[in-house]
This record gives sequence, structure tokens and C-alpha cells, in this order.
Amino acid sequence: MKNVKVAVAGLGRIGKIHLDNLCRRIQGVEVIGAMEISDEYRNIPESYGIPFFTHHFNELIGLKDLHAVVICSPTDTHADYVELAARAGKQIFCEKPLDLSLARVKEVLKVVEDRQVNLMLGFNRRFDPDFRKVHEMVRQDKVGNIHIIKITSRDPGPPPVEYIKRSGGLFLDMTIHDFDMVRYISGKTVKEIYARGSVLVDPAIKKAKDIDTAVITITFGDDSMAIIDNSRKAVYGYDQRLEVFGSKGMVQADNNYEDHHRLFTEKYISGALPLHFFLERYEKSYVNEMKEFSDALIHNKKMPVGGEDGLISLKMGLAAKKSMEENRPVKLWEIE
Amino acid sequence: MKNVKVAVAGLGRIGKIHLDNLCRRIQGVEVIGAMEISDEYRNIPESYGIPFFTHHFNELIGLKDLHAVVICSPTDTHADYVELAARAGKQIFCEKPLDLSLARVKEVLKVVEDRQVNLMLGFNRRFDPDFRKVHEMVRQDKVGNIHIIKITSRDPGPPPVEYIKRSGGLFLDMTIHDFDMVRYISGKTVKEIYARGSVLVDPAIKKAKDIDTAVITITFGDDSMAIIDNSRKAVYGYDQRLEVFGSKGMVQADNNYEDHHRLFTEKYISGALPLHFFLERYEKSYVNEMKEFSDALIHNKKMPVGGEDGLISLKMGLAAKKSMEENRPVKLWEIE
Amino acid sequence: MKNVKVAVAGLGRIGKIHLDNLCRRIQGVEVIGAMEISDEYRNIPESYGIPFFTHHFNELIGLKDLHAVVICSPTDTHADYVELAARAGKQIFCEKPLDLSLARVKEVLKVVEDRQVNLMLGFNRRFDPDFRKVHEMVRQDKVGNIHIIKITSRDPGPPPVEYIKRSGGLFLDMTIHDFDMVRYISGKTVKEIYARGSVLVDPAIKKAKDIDTAVITITFGDDSMAIIDNSRKAVYGYDQRLEVFGSKGMVQADNNYEDHHRLFTEKYISGALPLHFFLERYEKSYVNEMKEFSDALIHNKKMPVGGEDGLISLKMGLAAKKSMEENRPVKLWEIE
Amino acid sequence: MKNVKVAVAGLGRIGKIHLDNLCRRIQGVEVIGAMEISDEYRNIPESYGIPFFTHHFNELIGLKDLHAVVICSPTDTHADYVELAARAGKQIFCEKPLDLSLARVKEVLKVVEDRQVNLMLGFNRRFDPDFRKVHEMVRQDKVGNIHIIKITSRDPGPPPVEYIKRSGGLFLDMTIHDFDMVRYISGKTVKEIYARGSVLVDPAIKKAKDIDTAVITITFGDDSMAIIDNSRKAVYGYDQRLEVFGSKGMVQADNNYEDHHRLFTEKYISGALPLHFFLERYEKSYVNEMKEFSDALIHNKKMPVGGEDGLISLKMGLAAKKSMEENRPVKLWEIE
Repeated sequence: MKNVKVAVAGLGRIGKIHLDNLCRRIQGVEVIGAMEISDEYRNIPESYGIPFFTHHFNELIGLKDLHAVVICSPTDTHADYVELAARAGKQIFCEKPLDLSLARVKEVLKVVEDRQVNLMLGFNRRFDPDFRKVHEMVRQDKVGNIHIIKITSRDPGPPPVEYIKRSGGLFLDMTIHDFDMVRYISGKTVKEIYARGSVLVDPAIKKAKDIDTAVITITFGDDSMAIIDNSRKAVYGYDQRLEVFGSKGMVQADNNYEDHHRLFTEKYISGALPLHFFLERYEKSYVNEMKEFSDALIHNKKMPVGGEDGLISLKMGLAAKKSMEENRPVKLWEIE
Repeated sequence: MKNVKVAVAGLGRIGKIHLDNLCRRIQGVEVIGAMEISDEYRNIPESYGIPFFTHHFNELIGLKDLHAVVICSPTDTHADYVELAARAGKQIFCEKPLDLSLARVKEVLKVVEDRQVNLMLGFNRRFDPDFRKVHEMVRQDKVGNIHIIKITSRDPGPPPVEYIKRSGGLFLDMTIHDFDMVRYISGKTVKEIYARGSVLVDPAIKKAKDIDTAVITITFGDDSMAIIDNSRKAVYGYDQRLEVFGSKGMVQADNNYEDHHRLFTEKYISGALPLHFFLERYEKSYVNEMKEFSDALIHNKKMPVGGEDGLISLKMGLAAKKSMEENRPVKLWEIE
Repeated sequence: MKNVKVAVAGLGRIGKIHLDNLCRRIQGVEVIGAMEISDEYRNIPESYGIPFFTHHFNELIGLKDLHAVVICSPTDTHADYVELAARAGKQIFCEKPLDLSLARVKEVLKVVEDRQVNLMLGFNRRFDPDFRKVHEMVRQDKVGNIHIIKITSRDPGPPPVEYIKRSGGLFLDMTIHDFDMVRYISGKTVKEIYARGSVLVDPAIKKAKDIDTAVITITFGDDSMAIIDNSRKAVYGYDQRLEVFGSKGMVQADNNYEDHHRLFTEKYISGALPLHFFLERYEKSYVNEMKEFSDALIHNKKMPVGGEDGLISLKMGLAAKKSMEENRPVKLWEIE
Repeated sequence: MKNVKVAVAGLGRIGKIHLDNLCRRIQGVEVIGAMEISDEYRNIPESYGIPFFTHHFNELIGLKDLHAVVICSPTDTHADYVELAARAGKQIFCEKPLDLSLARVKEVLKVVEDRQVNLMLGFNRRFDPDFRKVHEMVRQDKVGNIHIIKITSRDPGPPPVEYIKRSGGLFLDMTIHDFDMVRYISGKTVKEIYARGSVLVDPAIKKAKDIDTAVITITFGDDSMAIIDNSRKAVYGYDQRLEVFGSKGMVQADNNYEDHHRLFTEKYISGALPLHFFLERYEKSYVNEMKEFSDALIHNKKMPVGGEDGLISLKMGLAAKKSMEENRPVKLWEIE
């Protein structure tokens, strides 16, 4: 069987990970080109023996026999690139979010639908082995009907304020992953969201008109609930936990730790911290994500995360924002 | 030094525990009388060598040299008994809640204040060794400024519907302990409460106009937040966890488990469940509670939990109720 | 039903615990007398309302209607007191060891047998809830055929050298509990013992001709094995763990910890130490032990730990000593 | 800087891992050839773009500009290949053991020494992140003077009896890793070994004149001790634990688990098993091992594990064998 030919657009932090995984850990695909605005990363594709490099997305998707494109460029290029790729009939993997504007996302998804290409969105946490295990156990009815889902999601430290200003705010930048996780686990329709946000970490974030600490309550169509708590700064590292409580029991996914030692001294027992940040914590999720994308390409299967998933998470983020601003619960249908 | 003379009113489940602790585990106090409406428990005081038994509260507080009374009778007698004891100039321990009506609680506290007696309220969880440890660590600045407090508080099974009908509802019956815990840990003024409740465990609870599952968000004066999640039924046992997240770190109190074994088999590793319910889980808290009450009596010290604590928790419960009914965040000052 | 009348001989550390448990936590028995050489503890029985106190064991067992005696006096009195009590036809609980001399132990057990009294030996760890749970699981065939038993048993600090000199040495003073535990769990005949001992904690222990660190290998009749490791000084507290590995799996009993908190900081996650020493760690075992002794008295049942158990553990201790001295494995039958 | 040129001999299970790591995870080395007796694996080097494949070791080490060879062929070829490579002046990585005969190992090490090539032996567990962490903590004096080292090392299931027959026996095949670990952690001279072995898993292993269960006590020159327990069959998976106890505390390395979930049900709490076997458990150790080998090649540094380490572990294995056969402790100097 011939390899499926793919290209990678954007060679920043995530782009490099996807490129490396596609080249070294996944069978059946072949990276035939890469694109990056900056000249800085020119030598990366070379080091993997990738024959084509360009600064222009149009040139990339013009490559002969190209089947699919993996878009990891800056957020504000996502919508345009997805549109271009869809019009060119390419299959698409795109990092989240498609766009911060609901209208624009809908436009883009319309094009994707019209051209009948497959689009997969990069909600990588769905591919994390621990969250996947929880998902499986829920589907196997180990916890029965879900009553309460709890997500703790805290970063080890805030990004630069400049980043925050362009990020769309904590709900669209950070919580959006948790919104998707809540949907992935629950499988129910989201009815209503109530969000509280505070600035407790850094006053500069207040000046940037964002928050750094949040608590969000979500109600589903069947009256079950979810709670998310977020912080931009957990000094002990990246805190990523999930708990699903239901009529038959509870399943939890704990953090992943740096190692498995325990030291007993006169004063206390101590052990290793959680893995520091997402590159370490979600390393395996990125491999699995590309594997499933490639698998869907090769076998012409439905993508495991679609444009609709991006759309709903975006709506949840916008509902959370509105809820915080107006200090009241907001129905999801209010967001249109 | 002579023993301080105390009497116990009410010999139900909690009354028996306090009686046993006062008689067998605490130095410096002497139980000289007991009161109970029902004849059924008449032989209990006898078995401890307590010389006086009565069906009437007035006779109990009329005992010669009586210094203090421990009130464990049904909730609807609390307010009257506390008033009577206060007017008789006795020191008072009373199980929570004082009353389900805010106006009545205020009346009673007025009498207590006028008569200058000390009143301690039975928020026993403050005396649980694990929660106390967390409290200490917070006070020692181990977690820095508090950002988020999380309480999971789930019962192993719902009480009879008859009980639920007279209970004042989940927020006043069950969450009230968590409200007090949140205040105990935080030490900040509560500003606002948003509560969501559902009936997911048993439709009979809906008929009784109560809920069985709840998620509550609390905002403090300094914009820090707390989350409580409650369920009337956790099939794996009594789930009582606390987490405090702040600028310098996080401290958690885990459940107490039935034992410390781990079994490794072909299929999984398994271990013991959490202690089943409050009598087992909070056994030590009841001993410590009576110790501190006795200590305050003996050394004429301020009570560790006062009437004001009962009042504020009641307000929080009423605010949660109003919030759920009106589906909006409710400021604490709205409750008067 | 009338209470069974018992008396307590020796009011040191353990004597006080047994007395307190018999008086306050156990139904159906009544302590009618206490004996203690030293005048210092005279007031203890009084505080429990025990009507009789003496300095003389003979007077104690001469008490009218006395059914049983609990012997907690110093080790060198055990053999004599047991003999006296047996000749007087009393049922007996005696702290371990009966005696450090094998010949003397046999003599005493002969008297016990001739007089047909029941003797229970104080191997309290058999009544610890965690070790009992392991025992149960083994009996329920959860681990299948036992292949390897592992015991870690380390004290928080060495006793005074004066104590060590009279103790019979580490194997008879400390490991003897582990020998009994190995037998309790295994249920097999002990075939051979190999013991290595070192002085790594305190050179004064060497001067006292004892060791402070030991590793012992035990082989059973069916070729399964056990390993014990001992130390007189674990700075992190009393380390008491058990592991049973077999054809169907493994079961472990972990230490009991001071509390259930975990603190996450910039540097590490820390938690509480094991309970410091045997009074805390084995608190429940002492209650259960007296309960089972009393239960056997009341219902005239076989004692759960008998003289034979003391005899075999003593032989194991002597075999370990011989093994260490001669640096070779020693068969249990060599010890006669 | 130019890449260091290496070749890989033997493309079985371990050979493939080293090849993959050298090609994909390590900078500064280039695999220019591979050798394998069997034709079956011919296509593997090709898939990595390795230009040269041969069935003959001599051809492999004859490659132009070859700097080092990685020997992963069957055990009985190790000694010959190392000799050939050393005579050809190549740097060498060789899987353990060099040979099962002490005399032959000495011969080979003599050649290595004479030719002044560097030889690294494949004791991969030294490169496992958890054991390395323990090693570091010990070197940082976190546990003070070592008193007792404990290793639990159990396989999930026995290899085929045919393999066992040629393996040199459990001590040389399996325990040899633990012997090296004990030395790695302790850093002291081994004085004496006492080993007990049983057949408890499979009678066929007895017929093959080997054992499947073992307990080994090691005494060091400073009288500190180590205990190893081995089994060929732990139904719950690969059990690889390490504990170091000393004057200042204790450090443990726990197993690595399949995932981090915990499921709470009506009956128990359950979680994932240890990673099944060495390929999963020691995946990172193999990467780190090749990294350090490559690093030593590139910077012309001393190898982190040398021929001497192989020699001493072999002696320990032979001492254990002799100890078991003669049922007595054996001094290491008796093995010559």
C-alpha cells in the first residue's frame, strides 16, 4: 500500500511535535512538504529529509499528490488556511481554535461541508491515555449515569501578557480544552453555563482585561452537572485531573508525575511533582492524535474530532464569557 | 481541682456518642444527669453510673451545681432548650442547626448574648484531624493566599424521605456542614453564592420538593472562590474531601479508608473503600469536639465555634436555596 | 448474664492499656482487682473504681470469684505468675514472651496443660485490622499458594541499652513478633532459618552484645519463603509493613499514617509520616485482643493464640540467634 | 561536528530497540551498518535508510570509518564478538552477560584492556529514571548511611523451558540485573551472599534443573545488607521495586503503572496494573542507555558501566548458585 502524502503548515512548538510524530512514529503516511513564515525553522524539514519547504501556504497545498494538510500555524491564520485547503479538496487537521469569531467559524465549516473534505480539530486531550481510559470506563457503564463531572485544569504559570491580549481570554484559550473534555466524557447536550472569574495571580492580567482564575458550572440537558476550575498558576506544576461521579461509582484520572520515588525523612514523606507542562504531560496524546488522524486518512474513516466539536466548545467559551460579564447563568442557545 | 458538672439532653445517635466521650475519654468533667423524651434509653445513663435521669429539660437544668448542658435532642427543640438553658445561666453545647428560621436563630442568640453564657455549636468537622491539619497548614501560610477551595461531600445513601421532608432541604441539612468548613478554612467574608441542584438519585426526593445532587459556587470578599459538590448517594461510601489551592501551593485532605491493604490480581489492583458514614469517619472529631468544649468550660475560654458561625452558615444555606430557586447568584446581604 | 471477673497484674505501659480497654471498651467482663509491685500506680485502679489493689500476685489470684488474670508484669515474672495462676485454676492472658528459656517455657506449658486452663499469649499484631485483613484474604485464597512473605518491621528508635541487655536480644525481643506474624499468615511449618545481624545504629548496642539491624530468611516445609528485615531505628517512624506474594496475586498491608493530607509545593509533594510507635500503631489491636480474650472467657472458647505459638516463636528466635552466631542456616529441629 | 559512525550486530528484540533509538532519538551518531544471522530482519535496516547489511560480524566491523559497534546478538556470541571488535580497535556496547564462564569473561576483558578500547555493558536498569532518581538521592545523602537495600524483581511469566535450559539459571539470567542494581545503589564491596531457591511456579523448571523463586541476602564490607526476592511469575505484571533504608531515612522507587485511573465502586477501589514487562517498563532506560553510550563515544568519556561491573555481577551470580547448592553463605572471594 502506498503512503498517504501529507504536509505540515507551521513549525512552532506544536508543529514540530506533529512533524516529528508523523515522520518517526506513524506508519503509512509520508510528509512531503512543510511551510513556515519564518526562515528560522527552514532546516527542520531538511533534517527529516522532507523534500519541499515554502513560506507560502498556497504553494504547500499545491504539492503534487498531496492528500492532507496539518495546520499548526498561528491561530489567526487557521480559518483562512482551512478554507484554502478545503477549496483545494485536501483533508485537514487543524489546531484549535478554528477562529475566535463564531460567525467566521460557521463560514469556514460551511466551506468544509460544501467541499466534503474531512476536518479534524486538535483537541489533543481526548487522546491522552488517562482521559481516554476514563472515557472508556464511562462508556462501559462503570460509573452508571453520570451525575457530576469535575475537571481541575491549572497551568504552571501564566503566558506573557502580550500572548494573553491576543488569546481571546482564559475561557477561549485555556478552558476551551476543558469544555471539550466535559463534552467528550458526558456525551450529553450542554444546556447552561455559569462562570466566575477573578484576577488573583497577576494584576497585569487585569489590565489586559482578562482573568487568571475561574470556576465554571455547566448544566446538561439531563440535569447532570460539571464543574471546571482553572488557574493560570499552580506553583507545583501542570495540574490536570478529571473525576466522573455517577450512579454506580466514580472514576478519577490523576496527574502524571515526574517519577515514582517516595522519600521518607524525619519530617515527612515526599514525592515528585506533576509533569511540568503540556509538552511533557500530553506527549503521548500528540502521538495518538496524529495516529488517529493518519488512520482516518488511510482508511477513509470519520475523523475522531470534527468541526462541530470546535463550534460547540467555542459557544461554551462565549457563553462563559457572557455569564461572567453579566454575572448570571447563560443558556447555550443564547450564543448565536 | 473539682470536676465541672454537665448534663446531656437527648440520647439519640449523637447524644450517645457525646455521653460516652464525656464519661470515658475526657478528664475534668462529670456527667451528673441525662434527659430523654423516650423511655427507651433510660438504662443508658445508668450503665455509666449517672445518678439522674428525666424526661423534662427543665428538671435537667435545675440540677444542683450544674455548670453546662449538652443539647442533642431533635432539631425543633434546639432553640427552646438553648433559650431555657441560657436563661438559667448554663453554658451550652448545642448540635447544629439552632433552628431553620433565621428570625428564630437571631432571637435565641439575643438571649444567649443578654445572659452572657457561652454557646458552642456542633460543627464537628472542624475537629476532624485531617481538616484541622489542612486548617493549620493554611494558617501557617503553606499555600499562600487562597485562590480556590474545593469540597466534595457525598453521603453513602439518602435518608428516609420522611426525614428529608423535615430537614429544611439539602442545603440546610447537608451542605450546611460544608458551608461552615469553607468559612473555617477561608477565614474570609462570604460575598455571593450560586447553587444548582438536581434530582438524579431518587424521584421520591423530587416529590418531597428537595434535591439530591448539588453544585455550589461561593465568592468571597477578596474574589477568591469555593466550590462544593454534594450528592445524597455515593455507592462507594462517605466521600469527604477538601482541597485548598493558593499562591504557594495546594493542600488536600483525602478520605479515611477502611483499612490499608492493596490486593494485586491478574485484572487490577484493589483497595479498601472510604469509611462508610459519619459515625466512623468523624469518630475522632466527636471526641475532640467534646474535649474542646470541656476545655473551654474548665478554663473559662471562648468557645471554638460560636452562635455567629451557626447564623452565617444558615444564611449561606438560605442564599443557596434562593439562588437555586431563582437560578441566579445571590448576595449574602440579600438574606435578612 | 453475669460479668466474668478478671484481674490485672502489672500496670506499666501495656498493663494500663489492657486495664483501660477492659474497663471501658469491653462488655461482659469486670475488673475486680489489680496488682503492681510499685506504689506509683496505686491510684490507677482507684480511678477506674476497681475495689482491690495489692503488691502481691498471690493475693490477686486469691480474689473471690476471680475467673481470669491478665499478666502484664515484667518479662522475668511471666513464667512464675503463669504457673501460679494455672495451679490456682485461673484462665490466663500473658504478655509475650513466657520466658527466654526454652526449658522454662516447656515447664510452664506443662503446668498449664495439666491444670487444663486456657492460656492466651499477647501477640497483639494478629489483632491489627490491616494484618487481619491480609490474613483473611490469604485464607480466602485471594493470593493462591503463598510463595514469598515479606515483613518490614522497624522501630523509630532503640530502647535504652539497659533494656537491651535484659531483652534476650533483638531476635527474641523484636523479631519474635515478626516470627509469629509469619506463622500466622503462612500457616505452614517452619523448616529453616538464616539470620544476619549488624550493628549499624549505635555502637553501644554492640557493647551490650546485641545487634540493631537484621535480615532473616525463613524456609517453610513446602519450600515457600519469608523475609524479615528489622532495624532499631527508622527516623521516619514505626515502619510495619507486610506483603504476601503467591500464585494468584499479592496482598500488601501498608503503614498507618498520622493523617491523610498531601501538600503540593514548588519543590515536592509531601505527606504525613507513619504513626510513631506501637502504642499509636497498634491501638486497635490491643482493643481487639482483649475483646477476643474476653470473648473466649465468656463463651468458654479456644484462645486465638496459645502457648504453642509462644513456644514456636521462641524456637525461631533461638534458631535465628544460632544462625547468626554460626553464620549458617539452622533447622528448627536443631533447637531443643 | 561530524556524526560518530556506529553499527548494530543482532536485530532481535533488544537490537531493534537500540537501532530505533540510535536512528530516531539520539543526535550525533549515525548507524552505517547492521548485521543479523537470520535473513528475516534484512528489511529492518533498509526501512531506516541504513546503507549496509551483512550476515557476518567481521564484515560489519570492517566498515570504513566505523567507530563503534553495538552487540545485541545471542549471549553465546558476545565474548567472541567483543574480542573481534576490540582487536579491530572499535568502541563497544555489549548486552549483558559477556559470557556465563568466569574464565572466558576474564579473557575477553584482558583483550579489551590490552587494546585500550572502551566497553560498555548493557545493564539498562541503571538508566531507568526511577532507579536513577533513587541513586541520586542516595548520593545526595538523603538517606544517610545505607543499612538495608531491598529489591523486588518479579517477571510476569516464565520464559519457555528451552530458553531456561540455556540461560545459565535464574541467578545469571534474571537476578544478575538485581545484583548490578544493588552494587549501583550501594557503592560498597560485596562480601558474602546467601541464596535460597525454590520451584513453586512450574515443575518443568525443576526438570530443567533451575528454580523459579528465590530470596537472596547480600552482606557488604561495612556490614550493611541487601535483600533480593525474585519470581518468574507475578500474575499482576512486571514487579520492579527498590527500597533503600539508611540512617537518615528511606527512599523507594515504585512500579510504573499502565495508567493513572482509580475506579470507586460498591465493592472496592481499583486501579491499573504495573506495566506488563521490560519492553514497556524500561522503554526510557533503553533510550537513556544509548544516549549515554553515544555521549561517551562523542566526547571520548569513560563508559558509565564497564567490564568490571559485568565481572562482579557474574561472580555474584556464581556465588548465589554455590550458596544455594551448598545451603550456606558464600564469600565472594571463594569465586575465582
